[in-house]
Amino acid sequence: MAKISALSGFPEWLPAQRQIEQHVIDVFREVAELHGFSGIETRAVEPLSELVRKGEIDKEVYVLRRLHASEEPGESADPSRQLGLHFDLTVPLARYVLEHQNDLAFPLRRFQIQKVWRGERPQDGRFREFYQADLDIVGQDVLPAHLEADVAVVMAEILSRLPLPGFTIHANNRKLSEGFFTSLGLADTGAVLRTLDKLPKIGAEAASRLLQSEAGADAQQAAACLDFAGIRTADGSFADRVRALGGQGEMLEEGIAELAAVLESVGRSVPGVMVADLSIARGLDYYTGTVFETFLEGHAALGSICSGGRYDRLAADNRHSYPGVGLSIGLSRLVSRIISAELARPSRDVPTCVLVSVSQEAERARSEEIARALRARGISCEVAPSAAKLGKQIRHADKRRIPFVWFPGSISEGAGDEVRDIRTGEQVPADESTWQPPAEDLHVRILPVAKAAEGE
Amino acid sequence: MAKISALSGFPEWLPAQRQIEQHVIDVFREVAELHGFSGIETRAVEPLSELVRKGEIDKEVYVLRRLHASEEPGESADPSRQLGLHFDLTVPLARYVLEHQNDLAFPLRRFQIQKVWRGERPQDGRFREFYQADLDIVGQDVLPAHLEADVAVVMAEILSRLPLPGFTIHANNRKLSEGFFTSLGLADTGAVLRTLDKLPKIGAEAASRLLQSEAGADAQQAAACLDFAGIRTADGSFADRVRALGGQGEMLEEGIAELAAVLESVGRSVPGVMVADLSIARGLDYYTGTVFETFLEGHAALGSICSGGRYDRLAADNRHSYPGVGLSIGLSRLVSRIISAELARPSRDVPTCVLVSVSQEAERARSEEIARALRARGISCEVAPSAAKLGKQIRHADKRRIPFVWFPGSISEGAGDEVRDIRTGEQVPADESTWQPPAEDLHVRILPVAKAAEGE
Repeated sequence: MAKISALSGFPEWLPAQRQIEQHVIDVFREVAELHGFSGIETRAVEPLSELVRKGEIDKEVYVLRRLHASEEPGESADPSRQLGLHFDLTVPLARYVLEHQNDLAFPLRRFQIQKVWRGERPQDGRFREFYQADLDIVGQDVLPAHLEADVAVVMAEILSRLPLPGFTIHANNRKLSEGFFTSLGLADTGAVLRTLDKLPKIGAEAASRLLQSEAGADAQQAAACLDFAGIRTADGSFADRVRALGGQGEMLEEGIAELAAVLESVGRSVPGVMVADLSIARGLDYYTGTVFETFLEGHAALGSICSGGRYDRLAADNRHSYPGVGLSIGLSRLVSRIISAELARPSRDVPTCVLVSVSQEAERARSEEIARALRARGISCEVAPSAAKLGKQIRHADKRRIPFVWFPGSISEGAGDEVRDIRTGEQVPADESTWQPPAEDLHVRILPVAKAAEGE
Repeated sequence: MAKISALSGFPEWLPAQRQIEQHVIDVFREVAELHGFSGIETRAVEPLSELVRKGEIDKEVYVLRRLHASEEPGESADPSRQLGLHFDLTVPLARYVLEHQNDLAFPLRRFQIQKVWRGERPQDGRFREFYQADLDIVGQDVLPAHLEADVAVVMAEILSRLPLPGFTIHANNRKLSEGFFTSLGLADTGAVLRTLDKLPKIGAEAASRLLQSEAGADAQQAAACLDFAGIRTADGSFADRVRALGGQGEMLEEGIAELAAVLESVGRSVPGVMVADLSIARGLDYYTGTVFETFLEGHAALGSICSGGRYDRLAADNRHSYPGVGLSIGLSRLVSRIISAELARPSRDVPTCVLVSVSQEAERARSEEIARALRARGISCEVAPSAAKLGKQIRHADKRRIPFVWFPGSISEGAGDEVRDIRTGEQVPADESTWQPPAEDLHVRILPVAKAAEGE
């Protein structure tokens, strides 16, 4: 057999670790469904021609080829018929909405948790295969602005239920930014946004120079842009500071109102997790309203763990346009960090709550009967795979951190069943039709590991 | 925008239909975990050299290529470094077990529900992308035979909880078959098995001729083989019939004992779903003990919906061999049939239980407050996207089959909140801190559709 080795960029979890990933997925789904979002999945492939329409990402696409495709001349000659693996869930959503528009009810509240693939160099800690978890509301022709707060509330609730250190969602609004730059007299608002997007990397001085060389600003305008980008408030007071910097006009006021509404709405549901941060630019051209980035306390180097915003034109055809607002979590990166930084651990390695021991193979049927009775009441069980010495059976449980071992009694010896908590050694008489584990042991729990804040 | 169209062989569900697929996945996971199986996922890709080692399937592999791979000479020149999408979950399991053997506890009880890809011609109703759901127990060097019953019990419980018409698991045992053919004096047991595998397609006469031309049987031996393959019993009585046909020997008796144990064990957990069917051959060479196929009543043309068995050598290296026993459901095919034959339907199209209406935008915050209170008690809600006329808001709910619409009261008018069941029109006063929907409306349920048996 060939040498077996891990593939760089394709993460894979052990069973105990996978429970953490599954927990994050479960929490995402539970909260999304609580807010009336429907889960969908799209096929993993899209026509290559659709995937490469956004120039910046084309080098990262994996193209598919049937191993024996050469036997069928012409099959892969037409690039519109070539297939590639999706690299995000937004391109597929746009295609799904157009393809199924007659069968969908709008506004569509959808979440989607699927793997995506990018042929990036894995050296710098990036994954080539990873889970993305998206949440979007898509309207047909119209999409009220208050739905921008709606998706932020759902995402804040999801993040607050995950085993994470503190997080902060930084929100801004494109109308606010563009309105401000315009009211300063700067016409090329895109150039200003692209420069401010680099601010954390290049610093204020370099940004000021760039604003003057690339965005047509004079020194005073550049300073005002940097002052603007320095505004960060937990409440609606950002508005007066923007106006004090000379911001005015209809578009700016619309952006202020929308951002204030998002802050208020999220604050009512999950207090203390969102700030207005006017430095948030988000590079992508298609955002047109609220934009979000999310940072984890003590893990700044991770970058934004959850980003998104409002886009007026997710998709369009001759009849309709489809505006949307959405947020996306890079789920695998987050899970990878939870695992590598030991932010959380599962209460046990396997789903099993009780290992039912077998004293001799002839009595296996009795052990299976006990397991059946426990399972009928929702208690996860397995029966010992062999009638080994009891010490070995207990080690089987211990190795997997199964909390309880059940010892079937012996009728001939007049001894009843007993169950042992192998963490404490406590052993008590038990009846399979009534015994109940403590509530916290019934299912695997993912426990946050309390630790002092650490620098990176 | 380019023409949007469905890709043949890549199924995709609407939100309401996806709930059925999710339900099948949930049931599989719940039952597997109840039996102490750990969920794992493996990466979607394996080295091409590993995927094509089984000759029969190599033409179906999708090979990956980075779009700009040509920029890096040598990247795809080495076939052992080329990657392909996995076409099943068994090849990845074998690799996962070898790669992680030092970190896994054996016997490993694992389930795995993931998409797989096969570049088959989609014309004949086959999918190119589909979910497979696997359940295996893998031992290190040893795997007790009673675990063959264990996986069958779990699978029978899973299938019995799904919204399916009656199903029957047909079980046989390789030792029983090979022991019988050997005791008849037929040395090439593989040839006999391959012929019997074709029996349903070619019929008894052609099978008899093939047994004589290909497997070295005389007319009497061929007749005995066909008699053997005709044995189908719901209990252990198959054993005497095999012996009456001249079957004898240690291997045969071992096979009889194992098959009888599987029948008994499954019968105790899920009575009436399993038969011993000695025609079951399963083409694949690697089975060495119990083999299973499963058929759906009234849907014979679907073929086996759940197959598998015991294999002594899932994987091996210089130190260890890894025997296993497993079963696999072609989940997407099953879900596709449930949907197309309308075997089940979701109780509503979306997770939402209550639509909270909005009488005017100025009072949206009150509607959100109600929704928050309901969600805090686990009731899925959405707030109406706009303060449209009430009739339109009710249609929003009706279109999605959301059962309840909540009408916030007006304090100024002294009117309290009310909630309407839009299926019956019944409307009652309600308080968001105490109102509870009927238990059957709390979550979406997948309801089997009762219908008379239909031919195909």
